[in-house]
Amino acid sequence: MTPQALQDYFHEHIPLSKAMAVEVETATPLVVRLKAPLAPNTNHHGTVFGGSAAAVAVLSAWGLLHVAMLDANIEADLVVQKSGMSYELPITGEFTAEAVSPAPEKWQRFLAMLVKYKRARISIAAVLNCEGRKTGEFEGDFVAVIL
Amino acid sequence: MTPQALQDYFHEHIPLSKAMAVEVETATPLVVRLKAPLAPNTNHHGTVFGGSAAAVAVLSAWGLLHVAMLDANIEADLVVQKSGMSYELPITGEFTAEAVSPAPEKWQRFLAMLVKYKRARISIAAVLNCEGRKTGEFEGDFVAVIL
Repeated sequence: MTPQALQDYFHEHIPLSKAMAVEVETATPLVVRLKAPLAPNTNHHGTVFGGSAAAVAVLSAWGLLHVAMLDANIEADLVVQKSGMSYELPITGEFTAEAVSPAPEKWQRFLAMLVKYKRARISIAAVLNCEGRKTGEFEGDFVAVIL
Repeated sequence: MTPQALQDYFHEHIPLSKAMAVEVETATPLVVRLKAPLAPNTNHHGTVFGGSAAAVAVLSAWGLLHVAMLDANIEADLVVQKSGMSYELPITGEFTAEAVSPAPEKWQRFLAMLVKYKRARISIAAVLNCEGRKTGEFEGDFVAVIL
């Protein structure tokens, strides 16, 4: 899946991704990196609204799982069950959310469980950056279900 | 502050609140309840995108603090430091996020710390509902700073 194809998917199916002007920079089974500008995501301080940061982060994590499942040739519904964000610095301009694949042994165990039980859970982490500095962290627990 | 005044403030300063079509139903120092429709917040399953749910929740919690600080006649910057969401049920239509005031002793301690040290931290919880059922929970840690 190309970055453009993932971006088109987001903009077509998740209108908020378009409202946030999310672009997909990288879309591989190991890394999904999204980018968003300040203007549509600003708050009353002229920095990025915490809700925008959280929404772009969860989108990056969901996108990583989506791309990795396609790569593994497994069709499953992916639903977020729990998420946490820490906001470390104000985000003062264009920012990125980069979700990375879990450790290989965790990923293999997740796929094995999913194939065996049609249902499995996995945590995906993402990091927010702005102008070369880390501004926050996200972690989400997702459940995959084969219908 | 009337619900309409808080809604106007959100729409003017946080464009994502307008993109999510957030309306303010209640705005008191004890409860801030926001409402949002499905259409601008939908995902590929036709339910509410987790990022929208998180963004409306953090907005309700920030809104509660904002209204309560105005009511206490204290002018301070309010910044979210950490947040957590649990997603219990899919949100299948219009939904609300209702943030409630902390217990009175916590609130009084927070105000006393803020007045004394010009900086204090407080947790605000919010509940998401759809069609009379609880669909998720939010908790956010906010820092208030008197400049």
